[in-house]
Amino acid sequence: MSLYTDLDTAPRILLGPGPSMVPPRVLRTMATPVVGHMDPQFLAVMDDVKELLRSVFVTQNELTVPVSGTGSAGMEAALVNFIEPGDPVLVCHAGYFGERIAEIASRTGAELRTLAAPWGEAFSATQIAAELRAHRAKLVAIVHGETSTGVQQPLEEISEVVHAHGALLLVDAVASLGGVPFSVDTLGADICYTGSQKCLSCPPGLAPITVGSHAVNVLADRHSKVQSWYLDLSLVRKYWGTDRVYHHTAPVNLNYALREALRVVCEEGLENVFARHAAVSEMLWQGLEDLGLTLMVSPDLRLRTLTTVRVPDGVDDAVVRRRLLHEFNIEIAGGLGAFRGKAWRIGLMGHSARPENVLALLGALERLL
Amino acid sequence: MSLYTDLDTAPRILLGPGPSMVPPRVLRTMATPVVGHMDPQFLAVMDDVKELLRSVFVTQNELTVPVSGTGSAGMEAALVNFIEPGDPVLVCHAGYFGERIAEIASRTGAELRTLAAPWGEAFSATQIAAELRAHRAKLVAIVHGETSTGVQQPLEEISEVVHAHGALLLVDAVASLGGVPFSVDTLGADICYTGSQKCLSCPPGLAPITVGSHAVNVLADRHSKVQSWYLDLSLVRKYWGTDRVYHHTAPVNLNYALREALRVVCEEGLENVFARHAAVSEMLWQGLEDLGLTLMVSPDLRLRTLTTVRVPDGVDDAVVRRRLLHEFNIEIAGGLGAFRGKAWRIGLMGHSARPENVLALLGALERLL
Repeated sequence: MSLYTDLDTAPRILLGPGPSMVPPRVLRTMATPVVGHMDPQFLAVMDDVKELLRSVFVTQNELTVPVSGTGSAGMEAALVNFIEPGDPVLVCHAGYFGERIAEIASRTGAELRTLAAPWGEAFSATQIAAELRAHRAKLVAIVHGETSTGVQQPLEEISEVVHAHGALLLVDAVASLGGVPFSVDTLGADICYTGSQKCLSCPPGLAPITVGSHAVNVLADRHSKVQSWYLDLSLVRKYWGTDRVYHHTAPVNLNYALREALRVVCEEGLENVFARHAAVSEMLWQGLEDLGLTLMVSPDLRLRTLTTVRVPDGVDDAVVRRRLLHEFNIEIAGGLGAFRGKAWRIGLMGHSARPENVLALLGALERLL
Repeated sequence: MSLYTDLDTAPRILLGPGPSMVPPRVLRTMATPVVGHMDPQFLAVMDDVKELLRSVFVTQNELTVPVSGTGSAGMEAALVNFIEPGDPVLVCHAGYFGERIAEIASRTGAELRTLAAPWGEAFSATQIAAELRAHRAKLVAIVHGETSTGVQQPLEEISEVVHAHGALLLVDAVASLGGVPFSVDTLGADICYTGSQKCLSCPPGLAPITVGSHAVNVLADRHSKVQSWYLDLSLVRKYWGTDRVYHHTAPVNLNYALREALRVVCEEGLENVFARHAAVSEMLWQGLEDLGLTLMVSPDLRLRTLTTVRVPDGVDDAVVRRRLLHEFNIEIAGGLGAFRGKAWRIGLMGHSARPENVLALLGALERLL
């Protein structure tokens, strides 16, 4: 490909940790001509997006909007809006993205404490309760589906503990929302965000976030301004709410795409979506074990949307991934951090979570290993 | 439109301050299936985008990338990467977007000074020299094309003055880049950003930025971390550079679109692009004056890509704009801040800057006024 040639890419079967494959109708809708970011036609799209997002977050939260950036922008927005310098904050990390939360929180002036669990494991409510008894926190951040390890963190008891200690619960649902059962309101998550390009199967560039009333009050009662103007939800909500005060130019076409991607999810129905992810993940896990491969996470903690599998002894991690991509147009990912070179990461997210994709991957792995 | 219906928008003639209209081939290219953000196919797209961006910024700067957010994210990135708490910073503002720069700078811990000029006017190098003699600054920020006033700020002498005082020059070229002659390297701008949705005629969601070697050194020599992890260019450049270290998931399809939009500009050729903007802006200005309307900015400071025109006495600003939109599908914008209710803002940016659009607008205004 040169600068003088049209974009001409081989289509990939995307079984990495995201982006996932995007349904053709979503891509087509994204290519609708642009209208202005204050056009009544676009304001209607914004209203639809908010309502559809509430359906997938399973929440009544009024402040439910897509942040105009990728998942990491959502992560940063989820932190900087609710933390002021000197605030005690607890970040629980058992993988790469938990560590990223801690890194971002460390840049807010928070009085930051971290609680670590080994990669591939989860936190218990007891651990977190002990930590909160020893050190008060205003906000506790934790990852629901850790993309780097393939662990799904149980959250029900942790939510009770966090709220019993008067803290806000911030949940990273980037890899899990729209793939496994999850309800913001049932859980009582105060702040929760995801990325458009994971189980929602919209192209990357938006980070849906939802904020409960308690956290909205914390935002309203701040003593200092939010350190990021771009991610300041007190300004963003005036644009996305009924005030319609201009803040920034929303990514119009990505919002077209998000509306359509959310409609795809809602038309299938969340229960059916979860059942499909459950069925294809069982198929993948069984198939990998039939190939003699070892899964990294015990069945009770295994995340259906992202599977980690041990790279067998004597096998070159990178060579296998390169051959999958170049010979079969299949993308999976290598390990991050503590799992680098040790694990492959196989995503089954949204539109990618289909049996034919699992069969293609298993067939390709059988030939390559 | 309801949630149950397909997106179905009337196409608009976009003559506001951005987004501008997007060529069909750019929209079509954006709808290319997603590939992974670390796929060699996407890495090649990133390299093309960087090279094409250097052509339109007219710079050799290695650090030339699209920030994964809209123009305001570019603005924030241009500030937070180069300012540390206590740094003396001078922001020159003569309009809404200059004021926004000051607002964002005020959240960095900078020792902020501002210099104001009346809306509709520009700064002289003498003014800025006097200010810098009185108060040292590490960085001076100024807007090239102020979208709220329609003023094009002359910058050559100011660049000399700023550099003579040892400061970095930060230029907001959101409304001007790709519409009027401008060269980052000839001017000596140390930091410069724009938005994808203005004269480059790509959908909104990316903010190209370019950083010269002096500013790169300032970034490298920081004592403190950049307050925004998402916008931290020392991390972003490791992903966009040869290291290819994962930072965040780039908005893949928007980068497809940006590559194509930049190719459109480069195929036409910058000189031809500028000549087209010059011709249609002359046509617009003459046509507005023939209708008896008054332009807000004197000819020597008038920005070709964004024209401000006085709302005639006795005419309801909002009614005219609403009728333009609903009866003729033409978008123009109202005034912001000091110009609210007093001026209309008419953009001629990129693919929108065509004579047939000017004729449609003039014809519609003739009927409505």
